[in-house]
Amino acid sequence: MNAQKIAVIALGGNAITQPGIEDTIANQFTNTRRSLDGIVELAREGYGLVVTHGNGPQVGNCLLRIELSRGKAPVLPLGLLVADTEGGMGYMIEQSLQNRLRAEGIDRPVTTIITQVVVNREDPAILNPTKFIGQFYSPEDAKKYQETRGWIMKKDADRGWRRVVPSPMPIKTVPGEIIHQLVEQGTIVIAAGGGGIPVYIDEQGNYEGIDAVIDKDRASAVLAREISADILSILTSVDNVSINFGKPNQKNLEQVTLSEMEKYVEEGHFPPGSMGPKVEAAMQFIRDGGRMVTISSLKDAQRAVHSQSGTRIVPD
Amino acid sequence: MNAQKIAVIALGGNAITQPGIEDTIANQFTNTRRSLDGIVELAREGYGLVVTHGNGPQVGNCLLRIELSRGKAPVLPLGLLVADTEGGMGYMIEQSLQNRLRAEGIDRPVTTIITQVVVNREDPAILNPTKFIGQFYSPEDAKKYQETRGWIMKKDADRGWRRVVPSPMPIKTVPGEIIHQLVEQGTIVIAAGGGGIPVYIDEQGNYEGIDAVIDKDRASAVLAREISADILSILTSVDNVSINFGKPNQKNLEQVTLSEMEKYVEEGHFPPGSMGPKVEAAMQFIRDGGRMVTISSLKDAQRAVHSQSGTRIVPD
Repeated sequence: MNAQKIAVIALGGNAITQPGIEDTIANQFTNTRRSLDGIVELAREGYGLVVTHGNGPQVGNCLLRIELSRGKAPVLPLGLLVADTEGGMGYMIEQSLQNRLRAEGIDRPVTTIITQVVVNREDPAILNPTKFIGQFYSPEDAKKYQETRGWIMKKDADRGWRRVVPSPMPIKTVPGEIIHQLVEQGTIVIAAGGGGIPVYIDEQGNYEGIDAVIDKDRASAVLAREISADILSILTSVDNVSINFGKPNQKNLEQVTLSEMEKYVEEGHFPPGSMGPKVEAAMQFIRDGGRMVTISSLKDAQRAVHSQSGTRIVPD
Repeated sequence: MNAQKIAVIALGGNAITQPGIEDTIANQFTNTRRSLDGIVELAREGYGLVVTHGNGPQVGNCLLRIELSRGKAPVLPLGLLVADTEGGMGYMIEQSLQNRLRAEGIDRPVTTIITQVVVNREDPAILNPTKFIGQFYSPEDAKKYQETRGWIMKKDADRGWRRVVPSPMPIKTVPGEIIHQLVEQGTIVIAAGGGGIPVYIDEQGNYEGIDAVIDKDRASAVLAREISADILSILTSVDNVSINFGKPNQKNLEQVTLSEMEKYVEEGHFPPGSMGPKVEAAMQFIRDGGRMVTISSLKDAQRAVHSQSGTRIVPD
């Protein structure tokens, strides 16, 4: 087959690890299987598909395991942890999707591609790390690790001290062209897991890893542009993007244009830690020529792509 | 480009973790970069290339980290650890190779594909686990984990008790066809790391993970057959396969035919734990129609492929 339309589906963290459910691998597999309905239906309709995913809880667990085995097993840099989770979570999604597609009689290959994402070494975010990772520490330990490990520590609300790392802007994915080619041919590609492995290009033109994490929705928007996707579908735990969120005049957005969305952003409707980066990634994809971004719950993935549910951001 | 000849290069464990050198990720990157000379030269000559690799020390470290964080972070099944290391080690090899190729002016894309490998659920190896993994335990702990975790424990020489898992025969790789297509087009593909993620096919036709490990040379031979490779190159820590190894009449093998090799196997020249599986994988590939298998040291990779070094196994 040749894909007629291409969609990039960004699975939220809740697709694989659900708060309130014991975090075992068996449960991660169960959650993953439940998260695939929309993807399976879009595959049936012949969409070219890339699936991206978050990895926050998984990397948190990796960091904890490393902490508890210091001096006994090698310490892994953050980029390698992202690469590990791209492999492990990619496998879980890939196998679950292969089994669902087979059961539904849909003949589409699925593959997982380890993805590096290039960032700018001069990105201002690198000098100003803001992304919390890993466990909480006492003020004393925070001070100690700041000195002995070179970590940058910040206070995370009232819960304690945590390490912060940069979250620079993604510029391009490696290997975007290979993903594009596979998708055009009908292969469903799992890529850019956890936002991709952050790398910069040094003076010699070499890729070099960097201790940072990339926002997975921003990385998905970049990948969507590279493969000339029509639609970017951001799946999360709420049904719609809302303005005046949590207030009596809260309004759920359905179809909005780029310039309407820009106005809402200016008015400060979207907090930086949650809906902000999703809306920003969505607008970037539309500015880059994308036809539509949907932001919806997992269960509404297909209906949102059909403009029947969720929030859709479209060009003016 | 379209690849004229295709080779599968199986990197031994020593390509990434070297005994006697402190096991840090910086050193793993350094070792990896040093291991790529032969691959780079074959890429320059226009070979279609798949690179496979072992993951023994890395999975050992994963198991240790899991052990030391039990009750605090989820326990990961063995298949997921293989998937993780396919991601992390694939990234290390991929990036190192991309940088070397760029420096040498060789324009070939590189990508890492997470690989499942199908085994037979009825494989007799599944009922008779023999592959040691993870750390050593006291006889008391061995007994305890046998009862509480369902592990099968065996005594590893005089060094203590360890967990054993099955090492079933690989049947096919997923997604072999995608790897084949990419290689034909000139992409260097890193695949089947650690022998691939072992899965079986259940009554419904679903892939299901299984707690086992697959020998990486056997998996490489299966993948080599699937992609119609001409050459399987097994890279290890010795220069040649030898008969009468360690005896006064030791003889290093250069070019040998399949039936000569079969005779040596019958005579018991190759111990099961080390050279045995490599020789067996080599013979299987030749029986399946392969043109040549080389078994050589890393440094001789290219010369062995050119029949100038190492041991070459060829059809009669």
